[in-house]
Amino acid sequence: MIPTITAFERSPDRGRGLARDMRVRWALEEVGQPYAVRLLSFEAMKEPAHLALHPFGQIPTYEEGDLALFESGAIVFHIAEHHMGLLPDDANARARAIMWMFAALNTVEPPIFDRALTTILERDEPWYGQRLRFLEDGIRKRLGSLSARLGRAGWLDGAFSAGDLLMVSVLLRLKGSGLLDEYPNLSAYVARGEARPAYRRAFDAQLAVFMAASAE
Amino acid sequence: MIPTITAFERSPDRGRGLARDMRVRWALEEVGQPYAVRLLSFEAMKEPAHLALHPFGQIPTYEEGDLALFESGAIVFHIAEHHMGLLPDDANARARAIMWMFAALNTVEPPIFDRALTTILERDEPWYGQRLRFLEDGIRKRLGSLSARLGRAGWLDGAFSAGDLLMVSVLLRLKGSGLLDEYPNLSAYVARGEARPAYRRAFDAQLAVFMAASAE
Repeated sequence: MIPTITAFERSPDRGRGLARDMRVRWALEEVGQPYAVRLLSFEAMKEPAHLALHPFGQIPTYEEGDLALFESGAIVFHIAEHHMGLLPDDANARARAIMWMFAALNTVEPPIFDRALTTILERDEPWYGQRLRFLEDGIRKRLGSLSARLGRAGWLDGAFSAGDLLMVSVLLRLKGSGLLDEYPNLSAYVARGEARPAYRRAFDAQLAVFMAASAE
Repeated sequence: MIPTITAFERSPDRGRGLARDMRVRWALEEVGQPYAVRLLSFEAMKEPAHLALHPFGQIPTYEEGDLALFESGAIVFHIAEHHMGLLPDDANARARAIMWMFAALNTVEPPIFDRALTTILERDEPWYGQRLRFLEDGIRKRLGSLSARLGRAGWLDGAFSAGDLLMVSVLLRLKGSGLLDEYPNLSAYVARGEARPAYRRAFDAQLAVFMAASAE
């Protein structure tokens, strides 16, 4: 059975691959699982039909038979658990790959997402400059720790895993901020993720949605 | 083999159970797994020996034989996966319980944690009042969605799961803010979590550490 995911009809990031359906598309491409996409307007995301599927009124969701999931991390985990290729077989290595999934979403993403929101919502506030510096110092602390741990390795713990998929996804939001450039091994790590054929296919698919919506 | 976790030698929350070792203690108590605790000073958390275990220099960590984990969500998941009682047997119900774990940590916790940090770090800034209102509006959006989904149910999806354990843990940080009181079903949900014998045992254990440190 082909699963169906939801995505923005017209992504606010203009097809740069930062919307959270991208992570799910990437995971599905890594494991070779075809999928269908149902596109949602911002209005449809707040209607009862979608709220029944996603209580927080966001994308992505994942439907497969009588299973319905929201929350991109949980969807990526579900895909990783039911296909080969995103979690190692060895029990300890598997636990560590899952650890990096949680680290990406609970330790590294919050300050990065906060910065992104701040640059949109607080740009005209009198405290903007000071607050941005404060947030960026926090992000640097996380990036410094991550950079030290990654060292010269290609991926966070042995072979590419769902932990790398989520960590690269989270770090990609820093593109254009200059912050990633301060850590050459992290920049190279992100570039390695982007160079994966599965990433490219997922990126092109979400970009095509935005281009089609823009051409209307 | 008894696992060893790490915790603050002197928790900055003064034993109110908000440090992240609490979640791990609670999970271990729910499944009846005895554990050892290694206490760390703030200085020790930044030393190479601890950074080898936890690249971000935080607590908790979890060591069991040759497995070493950090990140509380990942540790709770590991405990839930290897014992009965925190994840349902049915495959779809299990996927949904894991979904709530990720929702707690990636959707509900970030704005709540942000508010807590702001009340400590930005209290004297000229923008404090305006920023706090902004953050609290964001938290209300999340709480409203969660309250609507929970409805009159006891737990988020059938029986108590690791998803509830993390969600209650995340919501507990709102105690004293007045925000939780606006959603009576969420207040009752949190109280149900706190009333569980396993929660009480975990709470008492972390409080005892703080009291012992304070008595020195």
